[in-house]
Amino acid sequence: MLHNRLQSIQHWIKNQKAAYGVIQGKANLFYLTGFRCDPHERLIALFVFPDKEPFLICPNMEKPLIKQAGFDFLIIGYSDHEDPWGLINKHLASMSLVGEKIAVEKDILSVTRLEHLQTLSPGLSFVSCDAALMELRLIKNSEEIAILREAAKLADFGVEVGVHALKQGRTEMEIIALIEFELKKKGIAEMSFGTLVLSGEQSANPHGKPSMKPVQEGEFILFDLGVVLEGYCSDITRTVMLGQPSEEQEKIYHTVLQAQEDTLSLCREGTILGDLDRKARSIITKAGYGDFFPHRIGHGLGTEVHELPSLNELNTDQLKVGMTFTIEPGIYVPSVGGVRIEDDVLVTSTGYECLTKYPKELQVIK
Amino acid sequence: MLHNRLQSIQHWIKNQKAAYGVIQGKANLFYLTGFRCDPHERLIALFVFPDKEPFLICPNMEKPLIKQAGFDFLIIGYSDHEDPWGLINKHLASMSLVGEKIAVEKDILSVTRLEHLQTLSPGLSFVSCDAALMELRLIKNSEEIAILREAAKLADFGVEVGVHALKQGRTEMEIIALIEFELKKKGIAEMSFGTLVLSGEQSANPHGKPSMKPVQEGEFILFDLGVVLEGYCSDITRTVMLGQPSEEQEKIYHTVLQAQEDTLSLCREGTILGDLDRKARSIITKAGYGDFFPHRIGHGLGTEVHELPSLNELNTDQLKVGMTFTIEPGIYVPSVGGVRIEDDVLVTSTGYECLTKYPKELQVIK
Repeated sequence: MLHNRLQSIQHWIKNQKAAYGVIQGKANLFYLTGFRCDPHERLIALFVFPDKEPFLICPNMEKPLIKQAGFDFLIIGYSDHEDPWGLINKHLASMSLVGEKIAVEKDILSVTRLEHLQTLSPGLSFVSCDAALMELRLIKNSEEIAILREAAKLADFGVEVGVHALKQGRTEMEIIALIEFELKKKGIAEMSFGTLVLSGEQSANPHGKPSMKPVQEGEFILFDLGVVLEGYCSDITRTVMLGQPSEEQEKIYHTVLQAQEDTLSLCREGTILGDLDRKARSIITKAGYGDFFPHRIGHGLGTEVHELPSLNELNTDQLKVGMTFTIEPGIYVPSVGGVRIEDDVLVTSTGYECLTKYPKELQVIK
Repeated sequence: MLHNRLQSIQHWIKNQKAAYGVIQGKANLFYLTGFRCDPHERLIALFVFPDKEPFLICPNMEKPLIKQAGFDFLIIGYSDHEDPWGLINKHLASMSLVGEKIAVEKDILSVTRLEHLQTLSPGLSFVSCDAALMELRLIKNSEEIAILREAAKLADFGVEVGVHALKQGRTEMEIIALIEFELKKKGIAEMSFGTLVLSGEQSANPHGKPSMKPVQEGEFILFDLGVVLEGYCSDITRTVMLGQPSEEQEKIYHTVLQAQEDTLSLCREGTILGDLDRKARSIITKAGYGDFFPHRIGHGLGTEVHELPSLNELNTDQLKVGMTFTIEPGIYVPSVGGVRIEDDVLVTSTGYECLTKYPKELQVIK
């Protein structure tokens, strides 16, 4: 599978008349080599050529791990005191390359690295390969879907643990500790992002920060979490009530739930992405909460927790079979609290499949 | 304090004859605004001017959090369907700017964002403000040191929990789960990096990945972890033996310990950074393990877990009072195992202070 992916991008580079392509983004590297790591400031880069074998440059200490991941082409290692660009230059000089351009990930390549490449290949222009790579990653195959399904199951489990742990007086951080404890015991080394448990007024911040605040009766408790499993991410949000909801809390919850379910019902091949956002927005606006839904309806999901497609109201692209993304409407009312309900969704040949399956009816925890 | 930092960078921009500076890196933004977040692909950027007040642009939903963090200048919010660059353009156009350059973080700014800035201000050249920002962040003040000290104490605690949890048959991931559980209960929402517990042959990979492998008698168990506390990072490594060490394991351990202690003893104002690396390397080489120490002796530590200074053998800079960094020699022998001992170090007026204090004598766990 990795070889097919490398060939696709090699083919694209050839069509672009590029001398070579440089890939150094974490998710793209994983997609093409099977190796996932965070090299911090150290360079790990894959060089791909139209008609030659690729090579990869990395710190010496990552070499065995990259081989182990299944990358079986040349790997050039370097020590912390060595300049990797010098080594790259030497290798490229031995290759007699032809082409007018260098393909780079403009969306993530740093200006400093761009300048290094300009020095290596003066006179060549740069073309972005972000979209080409994203396009490759956009449609998931059955192997990827199986992993995403499993990752979603673990996200369901995380919410289950969190809801069971709810008890007046426990802090948001204690509940997070319990959730991640159970997931890590199952072998999950990395969460998709910092787990959120937000209670009461805190839940009204879509990107609020969990704290040592104890959860209290009469509050919404919002869980937002996901795991990275074999390089693929899940992302779920559920909101429950601790104690009886007020009338307004009930109204908010049911509005979000209706917006979520009605939006899901549009998920099938051919639907315009912007229509999904508009559907949820119209339901929330009709209920009087239009000003309290400040984000798009969802985002793509795969080797990154935010990738293409972007489900905002201006996106005119169509859903395709094999796309995976979130559907996550929310209403956030200061002083009342916030509700978000988020599922991971796969477009299938017959409609859609919700990968996350934790129940969505309003749960009142006594 | 934040205002002083903003003024310093404003002053630097003025000296550079830059029309403005754009700061969008997570750690730099935190350093200048007090706001720390991971905006994924969404733009959060601070615009700083030589003679005008700065402004910040961010997604609408981050606005209240940024205000709360203490940023009291103009904040321009945008929705997911809006183009932030259009809003920036409008605002800059109203400002009658003078200058020849734009100061940007070349080391982290993406090429795509650079191209946006080129469109906003055609004809202006770009100057890197990375070093200026790093220089500001390099020397820690007493407030920062107090937080780093506390963060180091929590890292000590993490190792303590891990060592207590060691029991033949427990998996690496179970031990990690226990460590993070106790830290999260104390309110730590973010680790500096994915916690490592590596046992036996796994410990011989400096960047190995923890797994569901059970720890066994006769193995080195390596703990590498740190917390983010109020935006500042800690980073500790300790290695202990489960069961009796072999003669070679003892030799490896004591070589690393001696290398670490002898290197620490050189830490004082004026020491050449490269000398620290050379000191550790010479001890390890003399013991016959020169080929098994594949990384530099340490890295700076602050709002990022890897920042300046870089303690590699080619660095000719000198230690200054207020610098904080790690000292972490290691020996990694395939099939025998790896040992690394890492402390967080502060240069003081009288020498140095180890912020991490967990014991370093070889511990044999029965």
